[in-house]
Amino acid sequence: MGEKSKPLKVALVGAGTVGSEVARLLLTQREEFARRAGREIELAGVAVRNVSKERPGIPSELLTDDTMGLVSRKDIDIVVELMGGVDETKGLIMKAIETGKSVVTGNKALLSAFGEEIFSASNKAGVDVYFEAAVAGAIPIIRPLRDSLVGDKITKVAGIVNGTTNYILDKMTTEGMEYETALKQAQELGYAEQDPTADVGGADAAAKAAILASLAFRTPVNISDVYCEGITKITQTEISAAHAANCVVKLLAMAELIDGEVHVRVHPVMLPKSHPLASIAGAYNAIMVEAEAADKLMFMGPGAGGAPTASAVVGDLVTVARNRVAGISLPVLAGFKKLPIAKMGSTRCHYQLTLDLTDEAGVLASVATTLAKHNVSVYSLEQVAVDESGDHASVGLMTHEALEDDVLACMKELRDSDYVSNNISFIRVGS
Amino acid sequence: MGEKSKPLKVALVGAGTVGSEVARLLLTQREEFARRAGREIELAGVAVRNVSKERPGIPSELLTDDTMGLVSRKDIDIVVELMGGVDETKGLIMKAIETGKSVVTGNKALLSAFGEEIFSASNKAGVDVYFEAAVAGAIPIIRPLRDSLVGDKITKVAGIVNGTTNYILDKMTTEGMEYETALKQAQELGYAEQDPTADVGGADAAAKAAILASLAFRTPVNISDVYCEGITKITQTEISAAHAANCVVKLLAMAELIDGEVHVRVHPVMLPKSHPLASIAGAYNAIMVEAEAADKLMFMGPGAGGAPTASAVVGDLVTVARNRVAGISLPVLAGFKKLPIAKMGSTRCHYQLTLDLTDEAGVLASVATTLAKHNVSVYSLEQVAVDESGDHASVGLMTHEALEDDVLACMKELRDSDYVSNNISFIRVGS
Repeated sequence: MGEKSKPLKVALVGAGTVGSEVARLLLTQREEFARRAGREIELAGVAVRNVSKERPGIPSELLTDDTMGLVSRKDIDIVVELMGGVDETKGLIMKAIETGKSVVTGNKALLSAFGEEIFSASNKAGVDVYFEAAVAGAIPIIRPLRDSLVGDKITKVAGIVNGTTNYILDKMTTEGMEYETALKQAQELGYAEQDPTADVGGADAAAKAAILASLAFRTPVNISDVYCEGITKITQTEISAAHAANCVVKLLAMAELIDGEVHVRVHPVMLPKSHPLASIAGAYNAIMVEAEAADKLMFMGPGAGGAPTASAVVGDLVTVARNRVAGISLPVLAGFKKLPIAKMGSTRCHYQLTLDLTDEAGVLASVATTLAKHNVSVYSLEQVAVDESGDHASVGLMTHEALEDDVLACMKELRDSDYVSNNISFIRVGS
Repeated sequence: MGEKSKPLKVALVGAGTVGSEVARLLLTQREEFARRAGREIELAGVAVRNVSKERPGIPSELLTDDTMGLVSRKDIDIVVELMGGVDETKGLIMKAIETGKSVVTGNKALLSAFGEEIFSASNKAGVDVYFEAAVAGAIPIIRPLRDSLVGDKITKVAGIVNGTTNYILDKMTTEGMEYETALKQAQELGYAEQDPTADVGGADAAAKAAILASLAFRTPVNISDVYCEGITKITQTEISAAHAANCVVKLLAMAELIDGEVHVRVHPVMLPKSHPLASIAGAYNAIMVEAEAADKLMFMGPGAGGAPTASAVVGDLVTVARNRVAGISLPVLAGFKKLPIAKMGSTRCHYQLTLDLTDEAGVLASVATTLAKHNVSVYSLEQVAVDESGDHASVGLMTHEALEDDVLACMKELRDSDYVSNNISFIRVGS
């Protein structure tokens, strides 16, 4: 057999839930993958922290704890990185690229922080970097953005890309649970980590938003460009206000191209119940894409889990293998140009404010005056509760479309006033 | 400039709604496409029937009525076929392939009849055939099946892939319209053709089912392999029976791989209202994909229309251009093997029967005996109406999962009996 028909050798870095599922598929379905890739794909080594731990289905002779050694091996063609982490992992990925390996990864944190550098290096080295698993598990979203919609002009991407927070908000909405209770339940069921910060604080969704924005608008977007607000401050106040307005609260990752500027943000949003994203329940993910010609598309599926994520990884792996057999690579950065990132203050949307007002004549007029001064006009207003003493009333107020900076200025002025208690909150309203 | 940097030349065949939109995009966004494809893409000619008709935005010197001449031109790199038709068009496409052109088409009728032959020829010639626009307009479904899920094992595809019939069924359901009235309205609004046969008879959906089944299970599937039943026999009887069972009636294209056999069919289905496909309204399309690892995915978007379909065509065109710049092509048939096609009679599902019975003692027992004889057992039974004379009662009967052949045998025996009038109908129930 000639050089051409040698199997492609794969180094797997990380053998957690997803990694071991990928290893299992590679070892048990060799024939099927060979048929699809046009060449045999051989699992040549698996880098793990602890080589003495037994891993069912993975022959122990494949295991090594010398990760850099495995990645640098001359006979390796493709590195599949499922180890996670950023700094150490970046070194590994750059080494793989520099030594001519193609890379498949699901590492959103890494790509949202160092994507531009990694993609430039891969472009220079003529190797592939594929990362379908980095956003929304098995849902094919990266590839439609990279390939299918390449002839269209995408104007907006909005999605539920974090199953943990979607599960928590769901429980708060459907069962009236408080945030802490819902989080605890999510942890008990394994939907949330023991340290849930990256999920509930929004960083996980922000990394995905950066990747989506970058591919949608073909411009480098770093996680530091993403405005990020998690769900930790959401209480039954916002959930009830949403319910009263026939809405639900969802944590959305959003990217919009407005007047040539990239708006990219993650925060809770009040969504009308009729919105297609409003009905995405539990740990499911869904992403809407709006494009000039294609109009509105929606992609839905399981956002996490070992098997779905492994499906995305293996799909990438087979494609990368095919590309390698064909002797090509598809640069991520093709057609990229640098676009400006808009400031969060320039966001325009409706806002739902909840204000705790002293129940006196003229108070509402003062509130209206403050809003008007900052160009914020009232769309609707409703008294939602009166406290026991009768001194205070809680008022729900929906604005017309307004500028974030103006709304923040209002909030500050209202907080500093005598007639509004500190008990004041706002949530953005989506459409 | 060397050979390498010459623009890629595109021949467009057909300048109807989609074709003229594709021409407009190619002529107005040259720079953008060049950036994305890595080479300029030049519209070199447009084949039309009537060259003297004015076509806004398309320079008249590009027009020709010598279609075969244009397709055969040595300087053409890519042929975009949007003319429709089968026999004449097949000749053109084969000519294009044989003379080394890559092909982009949205011609579902052609591909579902001669896909295997066309793909074999393109494979042999080393050129691409891309056809995202053939199924569900701008929704990226072909590419996820061809590429993203290549490492997974797809077990089922089910979708609403015909907007015309979905619109008609929607009107029948939400406004109680009879079929003829809803069809007439769809025609007036331009959602249905003056000759609606291909849509309402199911052939359009059957062509798409064949293409989806073929890609999902990597096996040749011809439109003649597809069991096809349209919506022309659906009346308010089925719509009401569905409503009573908390279901709606949808025309589904379905492909399943069961015990190594391909089941592929198009027919009306009673779907529970909670099913994700049940809420797809109007002219929208949606496709669910079930795979072993990826679990359930759903893709949704506009299923037709000039701009959305043009987006799919141009997305393909840019990819094909990229492949050409890279000197490669991705064979559609990669990893295909011939699987057996199951007979419709071997389908297993629940069935909803509506029977018009004489209202006498023992009739129900006779019905039950007939069903039992053919291994069909009753899941639920409800009297839905009694005629004015009181002689007949209309009964709705849902079976447990049963074999199609058994149910058909029951239907025949019941029709031949004395106590059931000819007024007897059945509809399959989905899940």
